Amino acid sequence: MASIDVCYSPELLHLYDLEGKAVVAVDILRATSTMVTAFAHGARDIFPVMDLEECRAFSQKGCLTAAERNGIKADGFDFGNSPFSYMNGAVESQSIAITTTNGTRAIRLSEAAEEVVVGSFLNLRTVASHLKELQIDVVVVCAGWKGQFNLEDTLFAGALVECLEKSFAFENDATLASLHLYQAAKSDVFSFLKQSSHVRRLENLGIHEDIQFCLQHNLYEVLPVWRHDRLVDLAAVKN
Amino acid sequence: MASIDVCYSPELLHLYDLEGKAVVAVDILRATSTMVTAFAHGARDIFPVMDLEECRAFSQKGCLTAAERNGIKADGFDFGNSPFSYMNGAVESQSIAITTTNGTRAIRLSEAAEEVVVGSFLNLRTVASHLKELQIDVVVVCAGWKGQFNLEDTLFAGALVECLEKSFAFENDATLASLHLYQAAKSDVFSFLKQSSHVRRLENLGIHEDIQFCLQHNLYEVLPVWRHDRLVDLAAVKN
Repeated sequence: MASIDVCYSPELLHLYDLEGKAVVAVDILRATSTMVTAFAHGARDIFPVMDLEECRAFSQKGCLTAAERNGIKADGFDFGNSPFSYMNGAVESQSIAITTTNGTRAIRLSEAAEEVVVGSFLNLRTVASHLKELQIDVVVVCAGWKGQFNLEDTLFAGALVECLEKSFAFENDATLASLHLYQAAKSDVFSFLKQSSHVRRLENLGIHEDIQFCLQHNLYEVLPVWRHDRLVDLAAVKN
Repeated sequence: MASIDVCYSPELLHLYDLEGKAVVAVDILRATSTMVTAFAHGARDIFPVMDLEECRAFSQKGCLTAAERNGIKADGFDFGNSPFSYMNGAVESQSIAITTTNGTRAIRLSEAAEEVVVGSFLNLRTVASHLKELQIDVVVVCAGWKGQFNLEDTLFAGALVECLEKSFAFENDATLASLHLYQAAKSDVFSFLKQSSHVRRLENLGIHEDIQFCLQHNLYEVLPVWRHDRLVDLAAVKN
């Protein structure tokens, strides 16, 4: 039986051997939720990049560009990191280069894995189904906040473990803790997160609606996976 | 109001600024529980050291030596890492040099702090009282298992947060998660930990009794703190 592990921070990723495994990269607030939303609204592909300069350069190649640092949109880019910006038809059939404080880093640092999937509550069920089909060991890589543990990514990990607990073995304590925390939180995830530092930080930035949006389960049947140098929506490719 | 944070692994310690703060170093199974037990049975001082050779050299200075690697006693040392070995009078008024897989590392990496305290369930209340008196910011440094998150150290962190929640502010998500997990576990910590990988690893080594011993709350009024180059029991010094 394949196993599922959880890594709480990109800073701990060197402790995990990703070879032959599937990584689910997660940054609930908001990078991976936003990427899933962009694909749900027709984006063709997404280039997650590590720094602002590299991201800006993608505009020369006909890409839309998106950048967030410390929770706010960086100057000189088409989009920030709010999922609502990607809903008005602007990303239909477009390529997007995106860089964020935590999420894009988690994705790029996971490239050694056999498969890298972008996860969020919005596409939880689709991600779980894909992993059940793959039947290889899974590591959920939480983006965290500047390397530190965060609750919302951990709750997503717990939700995914709950979906997979009958078909995957548990390997580590982080997996158990994530499941316990999700089971304590799931009746009202938003209330559970209210005390969280990152959620308070984002609430202070006035993006209450973004948070509520990103905590919705199974809104989209979207499956962003890493292929060569970019993310594509495997669900759209299959259809 | 001073704050309390939790660091889940020595590998994340570079993200925390320890200057002017109190660190509580914890390795429930078993290094810090064992050190507390040794002080409760009269040990004069303890030298936590990082490697086996350095530890062995302390025998030339008239110290007892203790070493554990991967859960078992290393060859050629007086003691391993079982608290029961320190109870028969052998450590009375003795100096002990000790090296373990995770716990001694957590202590030594925290030396930049204003105060380093050794915590365990066995001396939980004594540690909490000391921190209330100090009234400086606290970081609980979990030893983890080879850099990875572990449940038993996290539960201790949660127990300490519960003791301090009225007199300290919470700063990060790891603190909240630790408290939630402890509150879910506290009616029966042993059962809660049964699924844990590290506990299963130790159970396989036949040290069931060690585990049950280390989960007892407030058995000893012992307060090991770092002074210059060693740990001393501040509670014994005060009395």
